[in-house]
Amino acid sequence: MTGPSTDYQADFLQSQIIYAEHLPRLDKSAILIYDKALLQHKFFSTWIKKFPYAYAVSGGEKLKDIQFIAQHLEKILRLTKGEITRQSLLVSIGGGSVGDFAGFVASILKRGMRLVHIPSTWLAAIDSAHGGKTALNVLGFKNQVGSFYPAEKIYLVKELLFSQPFEQSYSALGELIKAAWIEGGKFWLSLSQEMEINSQVLWNYLPLAIATKYKIILRDPYETKGVRYLLNLGHTYGHVMESHLKLPHGIAVGVGLQLALELSYKNNFISKKDYLKLVQAPIMKNILYYRAVKKLPQTVLKAGLTQDKKRSIKNSVNFVFIKKAGQVFVRSMEINQLVSEYSQIYARK
Amino acid sequence: MTGPSTDYQADFLQSQIIYAEHLPRLDKSAILIYDKALLQHKFFSTWIKKFPYAYAVSGGEKLKDIQFIAQHLEKILRLTKGEITRQSLLVSIGGGSVGDFAGFVASILKRGMRLVHIPSTWLAAIDSAHGGKTALNVLGFKNQVGSFYPAEKIYLVKELLFSQPFEQSYSALGELIKAAWIEGGKFWLSLSQEMEINSQVLWNYLPLAIATKYKIILRDPYETKGVRYLLNLGHTYGHVMESHLKLPHGIAVGVGLQLALELSYKNNFISKKDYLKLVQAPIMKNILYYRAVKKLPQTVLKAGLTQDKKRSIKNSVNFVFIKKAGQVFVRSMEINQLVSEYSQIYARK
Repeated sequence: MTGPSTDYQADFLQSQIIYAEHLPRLDKSAILIYDKALLQHKFFSTWIKKFPYAYAVSGGEKLKDIQFIAQHLEKILRLTKGEITRQSLLVSIGGGSVGDFAGFVASILKRGMRLVHIPSTWLAAIDSAHGGKTALNVLGFKNQVGSFYPAEKIYLVKELLFSQPFEQSYSALGELIKAAWIEGGKFWLSLSQEMEINSQVLWNYLPLAIATKYKIILRDPYETKGVRYLLNLGHTYGHVMESHLKLPHGIAVGVGLQLALELSYKNNFISKKDYLKLVQAPIMKNILYYRAVKKLPQTVLKAGLTQDKKRSIKNSVNFVFIKKAGQVFVRSMEINQLVSEYSQIYARK
Repeated sequence: MTGPSTDYQADFLQSQIIYAEHLPRLDKSAILIYDKALLQHKFFSTWIKKFPYAYAVSGGEKLKDIQFIAQHLEKILRLTKGEITRQSLLVSIGGGSVGDFAGFVASILKRGMRLVHIPSTWLAAIDSAHGGKTALNVLGFKNQVGSFYPAEKIYLVKELLFSQPFEQSYSALGELIKAAWIEGGKFWLSLSQEMEINSQVLWNYLPLAIATKYKIILRDPYETKGVRYLLNLGHTYGHVMESHLKLPHGIAVGVGLQLALELSYKNNFISKKDYLKLVQAPIMKNILYYRAVKKLPQTVLKAGLTQDKKRSIKNSVNFVFIKKAGQVFVRSMEINQLVSEYSQIYARK
């Protein structure tokens, strides 16, 4: 598939998910955009050598800065000697920033090329590789520019994901718990009881987390109906902390989830019993406690929330609350109220 | 409409076309990207003053250079003080380059904003504003980057279009004749007999030219089925001449149409009788005769054709031939053959 066609909808947005032990065989004429940090792994450096059009990048927010997009596109066009067409395949191999960047490039080069993601981090495998959001940053503000451009295939490669350092498992946990809170049922029942996190545990939950995400995306592919907002659970405060405190995305979301839960409890949207069930679940011991994080100054929080892409009307943002595991909902909240309630949460004993 | 939604297809691609005497009333919070050359007209400079978020650009290929996209986006975000959301309206007022640029910006800012085009040139009014193609240039190669992003509305404003200098009518003629050759029937029958070109003649033919374009686009919105290629009639040689000889797009297409016709005749795709009907039509006196244009060196033509976005397989491009008015078709042609036939056309007495 080379972008949307008349009969695409669900097909277009539901990428084909392929679970694999090893890196796949791909067309030799593919353009590969990969994180150069992966070259430390022998299995990867051997594999990448097969492809003449491999473009190395350094993962991270600098890759997503709009200032460098022209240079990247010029280098990619030079590397491929103008041999790219809309039927050419572009493959990203890396974490969230590499996927956001490479997905954006694929969406605009030749007005859209074929795209495959091979996420190398748990965070990308669980969340960011899915659903077609691509993004770049402008003036230091995250994801101001981007497109909706789902990959035709996403390979989840065991040898690649398991090669991550142990600590990395934790930074995926925020998005995994978010998915389980949204889905509820057996997914949360099972995940909530996990005491320890490691690669095998994350691998086991991949299919459930991914299924939850697609279920929501397919009801609201282009975020026009409010349904896709639900995936923003934990992200409203989370994004501001991520930018300002330079927290990894998944860690910030973990903190944001707790704040969204506190806010839901404070506003009586969740019963004390259900609140405690979430707060006291064994899995929660594995995420950073929100009170262990530096409290944001009110001015910083206000500026960050104002920049929120999901601002519904002037001075308000859409915020995702939780009623219980499996029941979340969106409500428009005044930014000033979100700032003051944030302070109250921290002030409470 | 804020980009594609589940029930969009035809609706999404068929922009609403509004014929108007004067510039429209628009939401005051709209972002306007306009060609500063329009400020010479009193009616325009008065109108544009109403909008706080008006961003002036200079129309032309430099505007479309990818090198400047980061600066433009930064300036637009600063101008609007971060107040833009996906529901904000972006309006382009200018010719083809302004529409290509502004359409691209609208398609990526906040992952897609609402878009309205107000074409100020006949070429844009007849052709480029319609069908959702947006584009930037990379390394001097045209339209290497872009998106499919139709405007929700396109205003065709009489006072704006009629304010163009007289000569400008000619540079729209290539695309108008192309549309009439594709559509045939009464459209070509009537247009073929026009002896003189002026604003009123172009205004009269706008609805027919636009209807022809949408008829084709709606059969192949994302150029995946070969149907939309038909609109490329006259553009294969035309684009190379445009780049290399710095011809205005519409003039280059006029020359390209004649070359496509010569090639169709040379390959016996069109009868002598039908060939002569097209060549000798009164309207044809108004377009630049192909033999009056500098002949391209073979190496230049070959390099240009290799860069063609519509390259079908390695060393070939899709070329649009004409059988008679109302009957055109696509065939994959080897680049080497297109280069040699080009020389033969010019060599023939």
